[in-house]
Amino acid sequence: MSLNDLKEAVLDANLATVRHGLVMATFGNASGIDRDNGRIVIKPSGVPYDEMTVDSMVVTDLDGKTLDNKLKPSSDLDTHLVLYRAFPEIGAVIHTHSTYATIMAQALVPIPPLGTTHADYFYGEVPVTRQLTPQEIATRYVAATGEVIVEAFKDRDPMQVPAALVAGHGSFVWGRTPEDAVHNAFILEEVARMAWHTMMIRPDIAPIQPALLDRHYLRKHGANATYGQ
Amino acid sequence: MSLNDLKEAVLDANLATVRHGLVMATFGNASGIDRDNGRIVIKPSGVPYDEMTVDSMVVTDLDGKTLDNKLKPSSDLDTHLVLYRAFPEIGAVIHTHSTYATIMAQALVPIPPLGTTHADYFYGEVPVTRQLTPQEIATRYVAATGEVIVEAFKDRDPMQVPAALVAGHGSFVWGRTPEDAVHNAFILEEVARMAWHTMMIRPDIAPIQPALLDRHYLRKHGANATYGQ
Amino acid sequence: MSLNDLKEAVLDANLATVRHGLVMATFGNASGIDRDNGRIVIKPSGVPYDEMTVDSMVVTDLDGKTLDNKLKPSSDLDTHLVLYRAFPEIGAVIHTHSTYATIMAQALVPIPPLGTTHADYFYGEVPVTRQLTPQEIATRYVAATGEVIVEAFKDRDPMQVPAALVAGHGSFVWGRTPEDAVHNAFILEEVARMAWHTMMIRPDIAPIQPALLDRHYLRKHGANATYGQ
Amino acid sequence: MSLNDLKEAVLDANLATVRHGLVMATFGNASGIDRDNGRIVIKPSGVPYDEMTVDSMVVTDLDGKTLDNKLKPSSDLDTHLVLYRAFPEIGAVIHTHSTYATIMAQALVPIPPLGTTHADYFYGEVPVTRQLTPQEIATRYVAATGEVIVEAFKDRDPMQVPAALVAGHGSFVWGRTPEDAVHNAFILEEVARMAWHTMMIRPDIAPIQPALLDRHYLRKHGANATYGQ
Repeated sequence: MSLNDLKEAVLDANLATVRHGLVMATFGNASGIDRDNGRIVIKPSGVPYDEMTVDSMVVTDLDGKTLDNKLKPSSDLDTHLVLYRAFPEIGAVIHTHSTYATIMAQALVPIPPLGTTHADYFYGEVPVTRQLTPQEIATRYVAATGEVIVEAFKDRDPMQVPAALVAGHGSFVWGRTPEDAVHNAFILEEVARMAWHTMMIRPDIAPIQPALLDRHYLRKHGANATYGQ
Repeated sequence: MSLNDLKEAVLDANLATVRHGLVMATFGNASGIDRDNGRIVIKPSGVPYDEMTVDSMVVTDLDGKTLDNKLKPSSDLDTHLVLYRAFPEIGAVIHTHSTYATIMAQALVPIPPLGTTHADYFYGEVPVTRQLTPQEIATRYVAATGEVIVEAFKDRDPMQVPAALVAGHGSFVWGRTPEDAVHNAFILEEVARMAWHTMMIRPDIAPIQPALLDRHYLRKHGANATYGQ
Repeated sequence: MSLNDLKEAVLDANLATVRHGLVMATFGNASGIDRDNGRIVIKPSGVPYDEMTVDSMVVTDLDGKTLDNKLKPSSDLDTHLVLYRAFPEIGAVIHTHSTYATIMAQALVPIPPLGTTHADYFYGEVPVTRQLTPQEIATRYVAATGEVIVEAFKDRDPMQVPAALVAGHGSFVWGRTPEDAVHNAFILEEVARMAWHTMMIRPDIAPIQPALLDRHYLRKHGANATYGQ
Repeated sequence: MSLNDLKEAVLDANLATVRHGLVMATFGNASGIDRDNGRIVIKPSGVPYDEMTVDSMVVTDLDGKTLDNKLKPSSDLDTHLVLYRAFPEIGAVIHTHSTYATIMAQALVPIPPLGTTHADYFYGEVPVTRQLTPQEIATRYVAATGEVIVEAFKDRDPMQVPAALVAGHGSFVWGRTPEDAVHNAFILEEVARMAWHTMMIRPDIAPIQPALLDRHYLRKHGANATYGQ
């Protein structure tokens, strides 16, 4: 994928988060990575969505050094960088404050797999990170946000659960491409909405059977996937 | 009804589920049956709704054998087949993950008749199926999904309660025609939404009086129906 | 107002209930009355909203005798008639199954005045009727629905609380004109939505101070109203 | 800013509250102040939003004396005046009955800072005023509404928490400009929605860490703000 194609895909992903109602005001950002050339493309900071063009997209290297000087990158860039370095298979990252994902992040309640909608996309619970320490917040807040996500995945595969809730903040979602990541963010919001309502009316509800989780996740993912044409 | 008319009706039903907000992404499918010729028409698997045409509809026989080879049928075909075989009066089946119906299915809470909106369409509780066993999931998941629905109807008439919630999954809804089934799915979602909220604010609420259930259901259904022109 | 003007106002009111999201499918009806000539204009039964015209409106007398023979009147006509006879100042009646008003009606929970939004339109609690007896349902269901509303108003002025929740059913709302009644139905739904959420997060909440209820209701209603131009 | 520019900004703010779904019917009003000339521009009372023009905006002095005689000002004018006199840095005030802010105001539940969305705009809890006394309501209701807001801010800076919930009523929100105030009102509603849901599923939730509140609030406000281009 050329750098320009990546810029277009990242722009599209940013606009799609707004179109799907996942982002209000400027509370969100999407990025993508070209692994071959070590280039990251990310939304600029604080630019209104209706003024964003391909040329507004900011290009950096994996250390966050801006490779063009027009606009400042998203203030969340360092979180994206930590995720790209720790999760080598991901090609895109999206951050939103989408309503129900954020509610669960604020409530510090992970999203258990309560149904097959969840299981089709997330192979197990979507975790909530631990809270950051005052020192982490004071000294390296944005990078530390990425680090607590990575910490939450020390015993699980980020490709199998492509999302995390950051305690008291919102969601980070990823995927192989910017388009994938948008789709995962869209599903996460609906899954969070349904989980909230399920847990409210049935606080003692257990996750779905492991066999059902396997059946749904594996029909869409992995070597034996059967879904689609 | 000609096969082409059935294809059009099934396409319309699939598109209507999206238009009514009952289906997000590709989480849903509608089918119809021509009982005289033993032909089933169903949505193809994993095709985006905005690319679907009459020609995308897949035709099978009652054993699920595809009678044209262009596209794979919906991965839920076997559930539809079980329902068509067990419920001889139904002419169409719709599967959705519509938000509140799915919430109740995830919570394993059947929808009691709490008001006349419910009673106008469903002559009693909308049941939740039992959970599938690991063996059922491993060996014959899609057909078993239909079988637990049929099991939930062993003491009731599927024409009087044209919907079931599948535990941890979503809803299956049926009707005499694809248009009927869409309408029932639309009403089910609103009835589920109102039931959830009613049960949250009044956990001890009882179903409406049997006489009121009778009055509303029977004015719209059966030999003595009086509603409409 | 000429009969034709009344038909137009009633048609507009019926269409407005749909436009405001208060009515789904054909679950609702609006009527108006010409007190001078004893004529009632009401929605026909079971006609889709997008096919309704001024000519579809059905004219009856106060006994419900249809004065033109084209279409059957709404199946709820008798409820409207009871209200017109019992409440001499009302000029229009609207019935809806709007979501939150119906939820409260299903939960048998009256809507207390919890804020000034309520107080601007409803001078006290919006009542829930008692449940009908099996005999009332069997012998005179539609009229009895009106009678239990009238019963709920035996100690209050229907012009000061222009709405009632019918147990297990939905709302009836009225006003001086069809336009008024639509507006009251629209406000009732929002007031019910806010009451439901207020009572969920604060089950012990008390109604607003009587002085605040007076202040808001009386600035918009009665001899000393000051609101508007 | 010329008086005409201020009128345009206030008109735009009034229309924006409707566009953002914060105001239904005529339940809301926005005003702005020209501090240099002591002129306030405010919405007229009870005029439908779709008939409002720049010329409908009413100009008063800081004592509420109307300086043109065409239309009566919003019935809430005296509340706005109290806020302009007590909070010298604010340039605009908006009053709404937006759904979730009003729910919290009705429930008498202040909005704690439960996440970074809150912290980006409100440097601490959004307070609920005390209830007015019957005498305050009887003798000086509208001004007293402003006074209890000012009372709620005796220990905090109104520029750091630019909103208050008025007990049993709705929200007042302010900002440096009418556009700012609209944005704050829009964010307040989303923050209230997320707080309600967070507190429902996790009644014992604590506010976010003070360090996180500082980090988010101060990156967007004050001398060391870093957000944006």
